[in-house]
Amino acid sequence: MARSDYDVVGIGNAIVDVLAKTDDAFLKGNRLAKDAMTLIDAERAHLLYTAMNPGIECSGGSAANTMVGVASLGGRAGYIGKVCADQLGEIFRHDIRAAGVTFATPAAKSGPPTARCLIFVTPDAHRTMQTYLGACVELGPDDVHERTIEAAEIVYLEGYLWDKPAAKEAFRKAMRIAHAAGRKVALTLSDPFCVDRHRAEFRELADQHVDILFANEAEIAALYQVKTFDAAVVELRAGKSNRIAALTRSAQGSVVVDNGQTYAVPAEKVERVIDTTGAGDLFAAGFLWALAQGRPLDMCGRIGGIAAAEVISHFGARPEIALKDLVKTKLG
Amino acid sequence: MARSDYDVVGIGNAIVDVLAKTDDAFLKGNRLAKDAMTLIDAERAHLLYTAMNPGIECSGGSAANTMVGVASLGGRAGYIGKVCADQLGEIFRHDIRAAGVTFATPAAKSGPPTARCLIFVTPDAHRTMQTYLGACVELGPDDVHERTIEAAEIVYLEGYLWDKPAAKEAFRKAMRIAHAAGRKVALTLSDPFCVDRHRAEFRELADQHVDILFANEAEIAALYQVKTFDAAVVELRAGKSNRIAALTRSAQGSVVVDNGQTYAVPAEKVERVIDTTGAGDLFAAGFLWALAQGRPLDMCGRIGGIAAAEVISHFGARPEIALKDLVKTKLG
Repeated sequence: MARSDYDVVGIGNAIVDVLAKTDDAFLKGNRLAKDAMTLIDAERAHLLYTAMNPGIECSGGSAANTMVGVASLGGRAGYIGKVCADQLGEIFRHDIRAAGVTFATPAAKSGPPTARCLIFVTPDAHRTMQTYLGACVELGPDDVHERTIEAAEIVYLEGYLWDKPAAKEAFRKAMRIAHAAGRKVALTLSDPFCVDRHRAEFRELADQHVDILFANEAEIAALYQVKTFDAAVVELRAGKSNRIAALTRSAQGSVVVDNGQTYAVPAEKVERVIDTTGAGDLFAAGFLWALAQGRPLDMCGRIGGIAAAEVISHFGARPEIALKDLVKTKLG
Repeated sequence: MARSDYDVVGIGNAIVDVLAKTDDAFLKGNRLAKDAMTLIDAERAHLLYTAMNPGIECSGGSAANTMVGVASLGGRAGYIGKVCADQLGEIFRHDIRAAGVTFATPAAKSGPPTARCLIFVTPDAHRTMQTYLGACVELGPDDVHERTIEAAEIVYLEGYLWDKPAAKEAFRKAMRIAHAAGRKVALTLSDPFCVDRHRAEFRELADQHVDILFANEAEIAALYQVKTFDAAVVELRAGKSNRIAALTRSAQGSVVVDNGQTYAVPAEKVERVIDTTGAGDLFAAGFLWALAQGRPLDMCGRIGGIAAAEVISHFGARPEIALKDLVKTKLG
């Protein structure tokens, strides 16, 4: 196999987050599904933004957060995603590049603006996300360059991509190229509602095509339509052999399921959980980076946990300190 | 005098802040004057932004922050300032309106983009500001509507406006209208470097035209080119009679100088100072709101101090809680 240029290349929806505090009455009054990520159109986005409290903007996007995490760990990370040639697109591009991630996908010159996710933060620190995908619908197979995918140890795909037909084609193309080049394909199920939208296809992906599967308890239960975590693990074992599943369980840490083996990894200690957004994204970052370094699976889970613990100890879904140094301190 | 529609109308540079952490080596390497607000052109802004760490965006602008503070106190606030019809302009407009401030200045349809201030935060929590004024240069006398100014108890002007000729004309027009209508004119000196740029004119304004003057110790010393605070107060007394000067002294609280009277107001207690940005803006908000309610001057200083204490206890230059409630709690 050729030498790799990247530890991980992520493909996902390139999104700028708009965060504002609100209360539960606002969620009810606007019929927002609490804690979920809901897709909205331009008109609804405009209406909701008009009603929203003053906000702050920061770059987001699930796979983009993960790639920033890989770079923060000292890994070689690349990203493929579509912004528009507008100010929010410039902000997205600046932030991900400034974090050390290679990002060369050309911006759409026309069409819908850069995607934004309106995030309503309630006093219980929960987040309700309303996403207008905007320019993300323009991401297509042409944005997936063969040489980039071939040059990555692992290609990491966001389940959210499945929400738009051209992005789904981009996803399938990346998977084909990676496998033809002998590379690994990782998928995150993204969100239980996303799993509900695409269950049959996600199950086929998880059980037949994907080499590394990320999910939390709600997502894996939604995938196999089972009620308990243990039942989900039984279903997982019946699927693709040689597939690693890394399952996150919040305060209970993570469970890594491999051929016949199961590793339970306790959660990292966190002084005070401030904001759980990005926990899954950063767990994936730590896990994938460690895997690309050839670390054993329980250590991959451990490093995923360290990265996740950092991101939930402050507001925002991207690390505030160099994860490389943090891992060194924690693991000696 | 006609009934007023506003307690205060502020006129200032409409700016979106871009904040990123950095270190002192970066400031030195890029020859940035630490703690100062420096004006930069589009090219320099592009270069600095490219070199800047990943950031977050939030609405700013000195007088805009003050008007948000007035609204948060339950006051009737209006704002005049120029954004471009672009995404950052929409963000600025959304945030100030969502905070309860009337803002109707039309966006520039073409020309430079909405202003941004690149804010470099060093580990000592100090901020170094590099401002690209962009669309602010388009603010002119036509944006100052006679009826709006006549309808405000106080018009509040930012010293920073003096940096651009058309904005300066807008400033002078607002002052003329306000005085002709028997209203009060307030001015903040903004920044010691801004005072250095416009000393002669600022001194004329302060000593002959302005009814309420805001300054911190560095600004008032720069205005009168004196070395001590007491010497500045002596100079102030020699100026316009019937002019109120509200001088902020950080941890030493504030001093209000009126015809022959001086009121020293101790600072509010703050658990932990997180970020001093916006302290002056919010002091002015509390002071002006209280003055418009007809409160005595020492109480105006006290309420200014309460508003300032809130804003320095967290990141960002706009209040995070309703100042109205906070003042009620503090004053009973």
